[in-house]
Amino acid sequence: MEKLEDLGQFGLIDRIKKNTITELESTTLGIGDDAAVIDLGSEYGLLSSELFLEGVHFDLTYTPLKHLGHKLVTAGISDIAAMNGLPTHITISLGLSNRFGLADVDEIYEGINTACSEYKVDLVGGDTSTSRSGLTLGISVFGKVPKSDIVYRKGAGVNDILCVSGDLGASYLGLQLLEREKQEFLANPHMQPQLEEKSLLVGKHLKPTARLDIIHELKEIGVIPTSMIDISDGLASDLLQLSKSNELGYSAFFDNIPVENMTLETSTEFKLNPIASVMHGGEDFELLFTIKQSDHDKVKKITDISFIGYVTENTDCWLVLNSGEKTKITAQGFKVG
Amino acid sequence: MEKLEDLGQFGLIDRIKKNTITELESTTLGIGDDAAVIDLGSEYGLLSSELFLEGVHFDLTYTPLKHLGHKLVTAGISDIAAMNGLPTHITISLGLSNRFGLADVDEIYEGINTACSEYKVDLVGGDTSTSRSGLTLGISVFGKVPKSDIVYRKGAGVNDILCVSGDLGASYLGLQLLEREKQEFLANPHMQPQLEEKSLLVGKHLKPTARLDIIHELKEIGVIPTSMIDISDGLASDLLQLSKSNELGYSAFFDNIPVENMTLETSTEFKLNPIASVMHGGEDFELLFTIKQSDHDKVKKITDISFIGYVTENTDCWLVLNSGEKTKITAQGFKVG
Repeated sequence: MEKLEDLGQFGLIDRIKKNTITELESTTLGIGDDAAVIDLGSEYGLLSSELFLEGVHFDLTYTPLKHLGHKLVTAGISDIAAMNGLPTHITISLGLSNRFGLADVDEIYEGINTACSEYKVDLVGGDTSTSRSGLTLGISVFGKVPKSDIVYRKGAGVNDILCVSGDLGASYLGLQLLEREKQEFLANPHMQPQLEEKSLLVGKHLKPTARLDIIHELKEIGVIPTSMIDISDGLASDLLQLSKSNELGYSAFFDNIPVENMTLETSTEFKLNPIASVMHGGEDFELLFTIKQSDHDKVKKITDISFIGYVTENTDCWLVLNSGEKTKITAQGFKVG
Repeated sequence: MEKLEDLGQFGLIDRIKKNTITELESTTLGIGDDAAVIDLGSEYGLLSSELFLEGVHFDLTYTPLKHLGHKLVTAGISDIAAMNGLPTHITISLGLSNRFGLADVDEIYEGINTACSEYKVDLVGGDTSTSRSGLTLGISVFGKVPKSDIVYRKGAGVNDILCVSGDLGASYLGLQLLEREKQEFLANPHMQPQLEEKSLLVGKHLKPTARLDIIHELKEIGVIPTSMIDISDGLASDLLQLSKSNELGYSAFFDNIPVENMTLETSTEFKLNPIASVMHGGEDFELLFTIKQSDHDKVKKITDISFIGYVTENTDCWLVLNSGEKTKITAQGFKVG
């Protein structure tokens, strides 16, 4: 029997997609983008789901339940943002083993409700259940976008400018710091955590933000990206997704990729290649998108967007270093989540 | 700390609902019905989610994965039917531990795709992940309903007629049969299953049907129920939900409740009180609803609907036996799922 590990998550999704037939006229887009696109007549509905499993997506040793609830909502909302849409409603599914009490549930929902308020969405339903093992969280997000504003992964043209919001790699280094603290705590339970000076990185891992602000700003300046994806699996992986969807190549310039100094320094501290940390880190929840060259001057006004490269004719993706050296971008192995 | 077990699933949902503020004008109804109701302008959108966890909602010893996929979709669709709506799109979330292979995934999706074809819905997205323990399945269903056709749990009036589709209790007895076979198989692995003559019950447990046919038939005869819920937790529990939502009472006549002879016989075989099996069984996925007395003659034409009682002024729910004896209907303890 062919193994799941060999296929990987993207291979599995491709297989599910291949075996799925959509029949309704209202299904504008099914499996294969950040969210499904449903034709509601005068506009598009967007629908997306995320699953968070204990021991896979989070470690409760160092993840406050409140932050976990907030991050779940962020992950769901980010998928709607990646379609240039605005989320409106969410449902939450929760499986709880008997080691969780009411105070724990309250804490999870406190994080969820804070996120709902920040992102201006309403929690309208879901499911609750006991669980035989650990904590299971699921979110579905419904949102909308005017038909003329929809942005897919596909749509980029040669010479379009590649853009990214915020900065990359911080969440991954935050995770490394938390894992190190966990090991030290297990060795010496009386230690006090020493993470304050690294709160930028730890905060980005535990409580990331979905970039709805960028969606609003792009709308304000009247720019519609030609293609978009959110960075959940790491810049390399998500850029390859764009490349695959568009059947085009990309050149990205490492020096143009926004990275916090603390990310680079901490990477060195962990003896990790800073380039690998930035390219493969994951869980940045930033937006990676392309714009027409003619929109460059408008987009330049948004301070938290960086221009990191451009679209090319062939289907290869290259990372260009300051030295001029070029590295072909490949995906890391199967990354869970 | 107050315990989750003491609160129960309904208490937990009430608590979550109480702590949730909905702010959007488009949120017509949030937590507390079978599906959320979203105002889309000219019609209502419906959104509902279900979680299926291994060891809680299903036992893979006797649940074929294909049937599990089908049942997951049925559970989701049934919630949309209970709002008098028609489902259109679903997303599926899947967490897989390493004991599952590709053939297993294919089998789950074969069941999901069969259900999609039967219910005329499109699978348009979801999430896949590895899992540290067992199989996790989630579904979200999006559907629509004309604004004038929406039916809530609330809406019943005194003297409205209580109706139920199909027959009750079969799924519960099917589960008892499968559990007994499992025990016998564990004692003697060479045994052959002897379930063929009970396929009516086993089939109802493993591969139930969401009653969209009833929704279509009600539409054809031009009848809109005054209130509705789907029977997932058992007639007693779901009738009490209707009672609570409407702040009204119900009298149900046991002899009028549709029950297959095989359900009654098998209940006796298991030394289970047939009344308890019918009232508390659960997972029937039939529709429980009320209609105006003036609609009685129209609804009578639908053969698979039974009139089992009526709505009363006080908030007590009674089961009336053939002997004339009355039993007050109470919920069983915390039922998972």
